Amino acid sequence: ELGGFPEDCIKVNLDYIRSFQFESKLMPSTWIVIRIDGCHFHRFSEIHEFDKPNDKQALDLMNLCAAAVLKEFQDIIFSYGVSDEYSFVLKKDSQLYQRRASEIVSAIVSFFSSMYVMKWKDVFPEKELKYPPYFDGRAVCYPSNEILRDYLAWRQVDCHINNQYNTCFWNLVKSGKSKSEAQSYLKGTQAREKNELLHKEFGIDYNMLPLMFRQGSSVFRVETENSSIMENDNSVGKAQTKIVTEYCNIIEQTFWEAHPHLGLAATRCP
Amino acid sequence: ELGGFPEDCIKVNLDYIRSFQFESKLMPSTWIVIRIDGCHFHRFSEIHEFDKPNDKQALDLMNLCAAAVLKEFQDIIFSYGVSDEYSFVLKKDSQLYQRRASEIVSAIVSFFSSMYVMKWKDVFPEKELKYPPYFDGRAVCYPSNEILRDYLAWRQVDCHINNQYNTCFWNLVKSGKSKSEAQSYLKGTQAREKNELLHKEFGIDYNMLPLMFRQGSSVFRVETENSSIMENDNSVGKAQTKIVTEYCNIIEQTFWEAHPHLGLAATRCP
Amino acid sequence: ELGGFPEDCIKVNLDYIRSFQFESKLMPSTWIVIRIDGCHFHRFSEIHEFDKPNDKQALDLMNLCAAAVLKEFQDIIFSYGVSDEYSFVLKKDSQLYQRRASEIVSAIVSFFSSMYVMKWKDVFPEKELKYPPYFDGRAVCYPSNEILRDYLAWRQVDCHINNQYNTCFWNLVKSGKSKSEAQSYLKGTQAREKNELLHKEFGIDYNMLPLMFRQGSSVFRVETENSSIMENDNSVGKAQTKIVTEYCNIIEQTFWEAHPHLGLAATRCP
Amino acid sequence: ELGGFPEDCIKVNLDYIRSFQFESKLMPSTWIVIRIDGCHFHRFSEIHEFDKPNDKQALDLMNLCAAAVLKEFQDIIFSYGVSDEYSFVLKKDSQLYQRRASEIVSAIVSFFSSMYVMKWKDVFPEKELKYPPYFDGRAVCYPSNEILRDYLAWRQVDCHINNQYNTCFWNLVKSGKSKSEAQSYLKGTQAREKNELLHKEFGIDYNMLPLMFRQGSSVFRVETENSSIMENDNSVGKAQTKIVTEYCNIIEQTFWEAHPHLGLAATRCP
Repeated sequence: ELGGFPEDCIKVNLDYIRSFQFESKLMPSTWIVIRIDGCHFHRFSEIHEFDKPNDKQALDLMNLCAAAVLKEFQDIIFSYGVSDEYSFVLKKDSQLYQRRASEIVSAIVSFFSSMYVMKWKDVFPEKELKYPPYFDGRAVCYPSNEILRDYLAWRQVDCHINNQYNTCFWNLVKSGKSKSEAQSYLKGTQAREKNELLHKEFGIDYNMLPLMFRQGSSVFRVETENSSIMENDNSVGKAQTKIVTEYCNIIEQTFWEAHPHLGLAATRCP
Repeated sequence: ELGGFPEDCIKVNLDYIRSFQFESKLMPSTWIVIRIDGCHFHRFSEIHEFDKPNDKQALDLMNLCAAAVLKEFQDIIFSYGVSDEYSFVLKKDSQLYQRRASEIVSAIVSFFSSMYVMKWKDVFPEKELKYPPYFDGRAVCYPSNEILRDYLAWRQVDCHINNQYNTCFWNLVKSGKSKSEAQSYLKGTQAREKNELLHKEFGIDYNMLPLMFRQGSSVFRVETENSSIMENDNSVGKAQTKIVTEYCNIIEQTFWEAHPHLGLAATRCP
Repeated sequence: ELGGFPEDCIKVNLDYIRSFQFESKLMPSTWIVIRIDGCHFHRFSEIHEFDKPNDKQALDLMNLCAAAVLKEFQDIIFSYGVSDEYSFVLKKDSQLYQRRASEIVSAIVSFFSSMYVMKWKDVFPEKELKYPPYFDGRAVCYPSNEILRDYLAWRQVDCHINNQYNTCFWNLVKSGKSKSEAQSYLKGTQAREKNELLHKEFGIDYNMLPLMFRQGSSVFRVETENSSIMENDNSVGKAQTKIVTEYCNIIEQTFWEAHPHLGLAATRCP
Repeated sequence: ELGGFPEDCIKVNLDYIRSFQFESKLMPSTWIVIRIDGCHFHRFSEIHEFDKPNDKQALDLMNLCAAAVLKEFQDIIFSYGVSDEYSFVLKKDSQLYQRRASEIVSAIVSFFSSMYVMKWKDVFPEKELKYPPYFDGRAVCYPSNEILRDYLAWRQVDCHINNQYNTCFWNLVKSGKSKSEAQSYLKGTQAREKNELLHKEFGIDYNMLPLMFRQGSSVFRVETENSSIMENDNSVGKAQTKIVTEYCNIIEQTFWEAHPHLGLAATRCP
């Protein structure tokens, strides 16, 4: 019976017990990227019969969750997703959870997971969710615009390379090859050869495939027209933002210049 | 168009981009506790009209998710939950995610959250889940049995103290007092005074309240009878485990001695 | 007798033993500042009868050691010292000890300490070194020019404030006040009041005191005239550097513009 | 001129500047080992003409510095040195520098280095110290007696293996072989073969070589006879400690049982 527990005894030790906690704070004034990845999603996508190489509904669900994350966590300014991974970029001066890595990562990954399950039925009305999907996450800091842009470019190049490979692979498999035959067939092929294969063998023009598959998804805030607000009898213009999902080239400078409020257009600076 | 992207250019930088990743590995041969806490659960419990001071269904749902976590992550040997928090104890020599803190915390919190949403309808058939709940998490290491047992004792004492306070508080509120009146009324009262208040004013014998409310929930593995397995023509006894949920005193030595396979019975050692 | 030691036994455990080591790597592409501080230097300066408020010889010795540190560790581009503290700035892309914090801090503090003892006799020919002085150290990273410049400015402002206070304090003590009387006397006084006190009571014009005392010491690399080097039959200009010690204002932009090779002149950038 | 510096401006930023500092605290209730290693001591030992394979004076100097470290830092209970490395063991509950890794490592390595230079003349009266030696350092925590004892055993086995190899190597070199010939000759040889080589070729009985060379040096506290102290008219026995240097087997249980106050005799515990 707990009522008789010697509380004083525990109280004495409380500071000691707490002393084992440690904080891992992320460096101030750096871009924080939280990247989440599906755990065992190879099996998850098979059991839930996702289309190969890309399942539009599954990607829509990821994007829908990402948009909800941006709505819940105001400090996230941009996110980029491909396959079962998503990268969320927090503004440099974010004070979310006082920049404690563990809390930021876990809260975002938890919210994303909850939303994934909640929205499943909306996106897959015909499919039952058979068991709970889950994701792991990690935080990385980038000290300059340039290196953050390089990180995002890396993810988009990866998307492109993987998609090109997977498109070839699954078309070969669908045409009757075994998975290992398809793998051997593609080994060492260059980008141009893969495009030719798709064209000649399967009549597919790679560049006509959906942008979502080739470029991944960017979910981010855009500024809408200033709405006039009456404040102390003065009409004050105040920037409104909304969250959009686009399938665009985020490697080129053009994108960042078109969205100056993201603050990532300037790179080379001392 | 990405096809024309100068891949070599990015490749050169890959090691550099990756160099910003860092690993926070948890010390080997120490007990790892992953503790998760509901984010904004005060609001969540109001909107979903949880009973006060304790909602049995909501606690059942937490326990159900904890049991699923133990089933998914074999290295977790014990867990303890109270209110919207849960502590998961991994065995000392666990190599889960090579002991990387971020991955362990995020995977567990993500799985727990997914399961919470999936099982909601089973536990609350009459209530709609209005928005996605989420949790944050953190890892703490404890180098000895003794300090791990102290940590768990602290959580259980906290459960007891909070429950006693909340039981008084909500009975006062239900009897017509405002929340701030109830707060003032209870300020500075001792455990014995609170029990007397419950008894005299509301006819409640605190010690007759459900154990789940007073002691919290322990979800852990127990060894079942050895099943005989034929192996190389020999009958081999192999320990089987199952996951159980109990509302027991985990401060006293008795519990740990009754479950020697948890390896936490011995404390004082050099 | 060790020869009979069962070596295999230990070998098995080697990976396990090593697994307890951890690395704390400093974030790439950020300015690293190693700051060292004298341990128990209050006592050290009394026992070695340093002049108060400033001992020119003791400061010369610190500067001499700092210059030696810059010579030994080529990645240090700038350092600033005041009293018994010194801050060493490593270039942003330094790979010294693969940016492992512990090794960088310990190697610099160790070299500085060795040099301090070796050069003692040169600087204090008349004084015996009575016991070994020692310093502690720490590493801090700064992600931008601006914040590194702010850090250095903070140290120089601190130097100024402390020196003004100490000059007043020690002149009051030398004039017959007790230390606690001097302290009370100065409590709450502003910069202007302190300067007036020095002027009226002791005939000291603060701004005529040695720059070394008022501004601290900066030890850094400067580029010398390009020396012509014959390389593949072509005369090639190659920048030579030498290490200088100056007592200058490092808060103002002028200093950094005069030394563009330090790469810290530009601050406001996106 | 600094007097005119806008101090308010800097003050505003002070919290921001300080926010870049981070603390790496070592886990409470674990053994802390600070291990220091000579930097570029291969060159240092050549330039200062140390005897090969072991220079008794150089080892004496290391031991002398270690003893001074134990005297200065009361929390260090044991240390073990071989060649140009030394490991210092702090008691499990040490609060030295609030267990901040950077400060502990840097203060110990700095004190050791200062002492090394100060005592050089005493140990090498005939040799001039030509340039400042320096050491790097790192902290590692061990959560149990067992693993700490394994660490120390590893260092002593390493000492033995290296000494046996080096004794062969340098005798071969002294007998006229080149360094690379000596290296080839020894490649793949076992302990027994090395001992035979020493015996047959050079008439050396390995087991008769000085214990200091074969077993390394242990510098630690021993309790001396209780001295009677009069305290409030009562004679009170109080443990006195002194620091000793021994060349003993620290792998075997015997040593730790003979020095129970070190608290490392018991290993196997749950």
